[in-house]
Amino acid sequence: MPKIVDHDERRLELVDATWRIIARLGIEGATMREIALEAGFANGALKPYFPTKDTLLAFAFSHVFNRTNERIEAVTAGKTGIAALRAFCVEVLPLDEERINEARIVIPFWQKAVNDPEKAAIHRESMEQWHAALLGHLAEARESGAVTTAVDDDALAGQLLNMLLGAQIWAALAPEGQTDLGLNEQLEAFLALLTR
Amino acid sequence: MPKIVDHDERRLELVDATWRIIARLGIEGATMREIALEAGFANGALKPYFPTKDTLLAFAFSHVFNRTNERIEAVTAGKTGIAALRAFCVEVLPLDEERINEARIVIPFWQKAVNDPEKAAIHRESMEQWHAALLGHLAEARESGAVTTAVDDDALAGQLLNMLLGAQIWAALAPEGQTDLGLNEQLEAFLALLTR
Repeated sequence: MPKIVDHDERRLELVDATWRIIARLGIEGATMREIALEAGFANGALKPYFPTKDTLLAFAFSHVFNRTNERIEAVTAGKTGIAALRAFCVEVLPLDEERINEARIVIPFWQKAVNDPEKAAIHRESMEQWHAALLGHLAEARESGAVTTAVDDDALAGQLLNMLLGAQIWAALAPEGQTDLGLNEQLEAFLALLTR
Repeated sequence: MPKIVDHDERRLELVDATWRIIARLGIEGATMREIALEAGFANGALKPYFPTKDTLLAFAFSHVFNRTNERIEAVTAGKTGIAALRAFCVEVLPLDEERINEARIVIPFWQKAVNDPEKAAIHRESMEQWHAALLGHLAEARESGAVTTAVDDDALAGQLLNMLLGAQIWAALAPEGQTDLGLNEQLEAFLALLTR
């Protein structure tokens, strides 16, 4: 009986191998050959799944974004207003080794996107989604009286979102092994300004 | 009489050619050959100036950082407190075509730095310098009574700095030709929270 192959499963194995290789060798060093080797595939065996490195990368980045969104959904469930805002941001901030590694992966994606309109559009869609979520939580916070500032919510959500993006750079370029970067304090500072 | 060559001048010509090529082809497409062609150099003529692409990139990035710092110095001269804070941030924010192009260049540098401790250290030194400058202006603003919040200046400076970094990504991945990204409004929102 031939071995039954779960193709979705194998795609995810390849994604995981891709992360490990990018983290170790950088995006330029992450050749299809290195990724196949890392995942235990024969060299040509990647092609049916991902014909090019680009299709593999696009899939891999979508996967990380989806995984982050699943975590956000889990931690904000049942929360509204400032509590939801805090939970959302804490989940996106690179506060531990796993998320610092994700930051080290999102930067190569951004770099690719600078010269690739399709990847830039993926990024923008994701950010619009996050911006809308932050706006929603700000509106809840206003409704409950927790936020009273006359400053425009749209600008506040944008400011917070850019801080979350900047934090990825800060973390990815921090000295090896340094995980306490004061990012949580920055978030709390911003929330304190909003709610005092 | 042999032509007298100004080597510093030629280095800067190469830097300018490098920016144009990176903006057009991305950092991976920016080969020494393409850069030489763009700068009007014979293929081998780059070597005496920059033996490798890496040394050229390191020089080029330092140059952009220095240029930004010169602009910051010019616009903050004679200013203190919130006025200096605003002028500093406005100068770093990618608010026009020139600075959006600079953002498109700094992202490949960050990407390189993820797997290159020396470049990461250059980035961190620059950011520590900026962080100290922001802290100084915040202290001035407190002294004059413009900032009274109990929130820690260190966290506020970090938040603002990360927003400036995130704005580079936002701008570099915005649709071609779109220069109004609401970044100035975000800065004003933050300053309004600080000073109300």
